[in-house]
Amino acid sequence: MNIHKFVMPEVIFGNGSIHQVGESCLRLGATNVLIVSDPGVTEAGWLDVVIKSCRQVGLKYTTFCDVTINPKDEEVKKGCEAYLENECDAIIGIGGGSSIDAAKAVAILATNGGQIHEYEGVDKIQLPLPPQVMVPTTAGSGSEVSQFSVIVNTKEKKKMTIISRSLIPDIAIIDPETLSTKSAHLTASTGLDVLTHGIEAYVSLAATPLTDVQAQNAISLVGKYLRPSVASKINQEAKTNMAMASLQAGLAFSNAILGAVHAMSHAVGGRYPLLHGDINSILLPHVMEFNLLANPKKFADIACFLGMDTRGMSYMEAGRKTIEYVKQLAEDIGVPQRLSDIGVKQEEIRKMSLVAFHDACMITNPRDITVEEIEGIFRKAW
Amino acid sequence: MNIHKFVMPEVIFGNGSIHQVGESCLRLGATNVLIVSDPGVTEAGWLDVVIKSCRQVGLKYTTFCDVTINPKDEEVKKGCEAYLENECDAIIGIGGGSSIDAAKAVAILATNGGQIHEYEGVDKIQLPLPPQVMVPTTAGSGSEVSQFSVIVNTKEKKKMTIISRSLIPDIAIIDPETLSTKSAHLTASTGLDVLTHGIEAYVSLAATPLTDVQAQNAISLVGKYLRPSVASKINQEAKTNMAMASLQAGLAFSNAILGAVHAMSHAVGGRYPLLHGDINSILLPHVMEFNLLANPKKFADIACFLGMDTRGMSYMEAGRKTIEYVKQLAEDIGVPQRLSDIGVKQEEIRKMSLVAFHDACMITNPRDITVEEIEGIFRKAW
Repeated sequence: MNIHKFVMPEVIFGNGSIHQVGESCLRLGATNVLIVSDPGVTEAGWLDVVIKSCRQVGLKYTTFCDVTINPKDEEVKKGCEAYLENECDAIIGIGGGSSIDAAKAVAILATNGGQIHEYEGVDKIQLPLPPQVMVPTTAGSGSEVSQFSVIVNTKEKKKMTIISRSLIPDIAIIDPETLSTKSAHLTASTGLDVLTHGIEAYVSLAATPLTDVQAQNAISLVGKYLRPSVASKINQEAKTNMAMASLQAGLAFSNAILGAVHAMSHAVGGRYPLLHGDINSILLPHVMEFNLLANPKKFADIACFLGMDTRGMSYMEAGRKTIEYVKQLAEDIGVPQRLSDIGVKQEEIRKMSLVAFHDACMITNPRDITVEEIEGIFRKAW
Repeated sequence: MNIHKFVMPEVIFGNGSIHQVGESCLRLGATNVLIVSDPGVTEAGWLDVVIKSCRQVGLKYTTFCDVTINPKDEEVKKGCEAYLENECDAIIGIGGGSSIDAAKAVAILATNGGQIHEYEGVDKIQLPLPPQVMVPTTAGSGSEVSQFSVIVNTKEKKKMTIISRSLIPDIAIIDPETLSTKSAHLTASTGLDVLTHGIEAYVSLAATPLTDVQAQNAISLVGKYLRPSVASKINQEAKTNMAMASLQAGLAFSNAILGAVHAMSHAVGGRYPLLHGDINSILLPHVMEFNLLANPKKFADIACFLGMDTRGMSYMEAGRKTIEYVKQLAEDIGVPQRLSDIGVKQEEIRKMSLVAFHDACMITNPRDITVEEIEGIFRKAW
């Protein structure tokens, strides 16, 4: 066994925990925070809750709520300007993966300067970041605990993956009550993203016993609670368990990294304003079919985590059962089934395959892959 | 569900990871470290490995290797004097729970001053501690990841439990190779301590889904690997898995706290120079018998984690199977069976019961307990 590392932020989990955001910032020495969010979260009222919590402890604050789906380099630049102009000394990100990734990217520029493009890749950040408190509202991205930030390079129409230990926030506050304002479609899409994180982390070349434990639990919880969570906004048991699944999947992939689904999904998301979870949902079973060869036992394990009885089956047979399960789950919860259904153009597949081939997430994919093979998977999923 | 927190240090795990101790200190800004250890670890050669690693990165260092089993207030005082006299700015603890607990206690006094007694209890530490890197060598205490330090009050002949988030070290370096120099008895004793941590954390009133995951895995690994680990010094698979079990049990109990076994064990360990693991081994099944009533389902779960087939059994029946398993395991690996066998005097039971009743670990014991009931358990175990 190689030497491996496991890092995570302090986690505060539970209904009502969002009200601890102000106090948490204070504990990190903040006096004047930049709150990064998006219009959907603002409209749902969660921004007001965060502002109230900051006010109650006497924190000054500035809001920057212009983050869009698949956050862009330009938004990060504007967020950083807001941070510097208002002399902030800490950052809160509240929202889905887009808001949190944007908040982290703002944190990079706030102390390291330059342009966000300079930090693409692994370990490019030199100086410590300001204190960061993240509040996810989607049970999806896991960004609140991860060492990732994914930002769109608008000129090159691609997603830049930034990976660095210093992107792990100081405190992650996970309040399942924030999930009650999500639409069924967003719940389904982000839930499938959680499953993708769990599966890609579990079969990753960088998986360790510590990440396996988290991935296993995340997968198991998705199997039990994603369907009921999509079915009802107020099923608290389902929401709480999906929030836990998202957290555990985030801990797994932050430390085990991901694979071809994310590498390919980043290539699509850089060109189309689509939900990350929708793209992942479509790609996941196709990539699993390709990867099965690389680790039949681990794909067979996943069938057990999902509650299937695999007695008497070979690893390959059980692994194929896992893939069938994922397809059925996607169908049950009504996420899109094909890239052509969500507007991806066939003539862009070659370009996207090249971009995916060079994505940082491809390094830990369990099976070696060529650009042609990526293209083949894209065509099957189209 | 209540709001709960989960905190852990950065973890570096694997054979050879001990050589990263110097670089890890450097990364935390250290220039001059105090290395806290004990004579056994020094003799086994691990102190030299740590010193070499510090030298290689140009760190100055001072050693303080006078820690004894169940570390004492006076040793902590002397360690702090060494820290201050040599103008150290970081602390390494290498050894079993005694060395690491002592290193943490030195860290408290180094920046907070006063006497270690002033910090007994929960959250009494005001000022930040110096950077701390811990290297466990026993697969036992879990102190390298926990927010606990347990120090003997020599005047009052009792163990003081200090609990604070700031006692969580910055980096824990867990190298299974260090376990190859442990005697069979120490392996058995510390291994049973790991099982105690896993079980007490799992049934604790402060258990959460995040701690349950860690406790479950720790218990399961002890069930599979403690016997072979006791049987052979060079069974690397067993050593690695016991190191992982110890780590996961540490993560579980640091966040879920413990119960009556530890409260009672602290009372004994404050009066007798006995191995903490030996005392726990004796008390564990008796406390489990008392606690079973409080959460039959969780005790039944543990039977499953240990690989037993509980189909057709009630929770109480499966829970009793768990207790039988623990007794059999203790017998198999040859740890002491009775308090009278290890020199505990019957006439001290009443005094120890009173001390145990007031120990911080008793707060999260799943079943309410009186001083008389503690006394009854002590007498059964005597």
